[in-house]
Amino acid sequence: MAPSANLAALRDAVRDIPDFPKPGIVFKDITPLLASPPLFKATLDLMEARWRPERIAKVVGIESRGFLFAAPLADRLGAGLVIARKPGKLPYQTLSEEYALEYGVDTLHLHADAILPGERILVVDDVIATGGTAGAVGRLSVRTGGVLVGYSFLIELGFLEGAARLNGTPHHAVLAY
Amino acid sequence: MAPSANLAALRDAVRDIPDFPKPGIVFKDITPLLASPPLFKATLDLMEARWRPERIAKVVGIESRGFLFAAPLADRLGAGLVIARKPGKLPYQTLSEEYALEYGVDTLHLHADAILPGERILVVDDVIATGGTAGAVGRLSVRTGGVLVGYSFLIELGFLEGAARLNGTPHHAVLAY
Repeated sequence: MAPSANLAALRDAVRDIPDFPKPGIVFKDITPLLASPPLFKATLDLMEARWRPERIAKVVGIESRGFLFAAPLADRLGAGLVIARKPGKLPYQTLSEEYALEYGVDTLHLHADAILPGERILVVDDVIATGGTAGAVGRLSVRTGGVLVGYSFLIELGFLEGAARLNGTPHHAVLAY
Repeated sequence: MAPSANLAALRDAVRDIPDFPKPGIVFKDITPLLASPPLFKATLDLMEARWRPERIAKVVGIESRGFLFAAPLADRLGAGLVIARKPGKLPYQTLSEEYALEYGVDTLHLHADAILPGERILVVDDVIATGGTAGAVGRLSVRTGGVLVGYSFLIELGFLEGAARLNGTPHHAVLAY
């Protein structure tokens, strides 16, 4: 497929689900894209092409849909895979960062030994909405001594202006809404 | 690395964490293995080699650590990726199956349209313990019309005899304890 054909097909494979998880929210359901071998491959090809020149040492996937792209991207880039998880899930010493939710705050953790000083880091998630989650994981990566090179997303919800929470770090999204 | 060297190095990269998540449990922490590019690659090489001849159409990853292996395996095998999730996470019509926990039951869901009749299915998780989770996802795969070809795990905790819950379906684990 040509790149433009790819993008149209990828966009068609993201299903809008109105009022999920609650009234007024239109959820972007990426499962039809994942289930299609050529579309899943095309997505990973685009992500890989963007980040291949950056000599990434560790890819950080954000629980849990971020794992779906972080893991194959780490495999393709020859990088290590690190997981950012919700409280109580990582068993070793961790660092944590809070981020704002619509009401209140939530927390993400990273193992303290997951990133070595100077390692070049790519943070991956399926969607960037308000950017709170991605920003928190970026800060964690820096606190462990890593060099935060960029953020990779499948989808950017531009109207939520999440990129403003990424402190000027480069980011790439396959699809923008 | 030779295969035997691989296995010793992989085993060394799984860290025992005593009393996690609760007293008396020794948790197998796979994060050092994930973080090592050659060890993560060697793990995926072994899984891919086992399942490559089986012409898998869909790889089903079990939330959430199963995603870490299911996603790159789907990428390598040219298969689609399907996600089995906890209640309230999948936005479209779902099928669900309960499975036994130490006390009580839990439930996993699969989108009703995730698997087409006759598709050859591989179910993937990080660890098989009692086999309750994997067995439930296998039953879901069959209910959607799929042909359940096998189960792939990083770790099998043999003393818990989980394979007995897999109804004779072939399974492969990279590391056995």
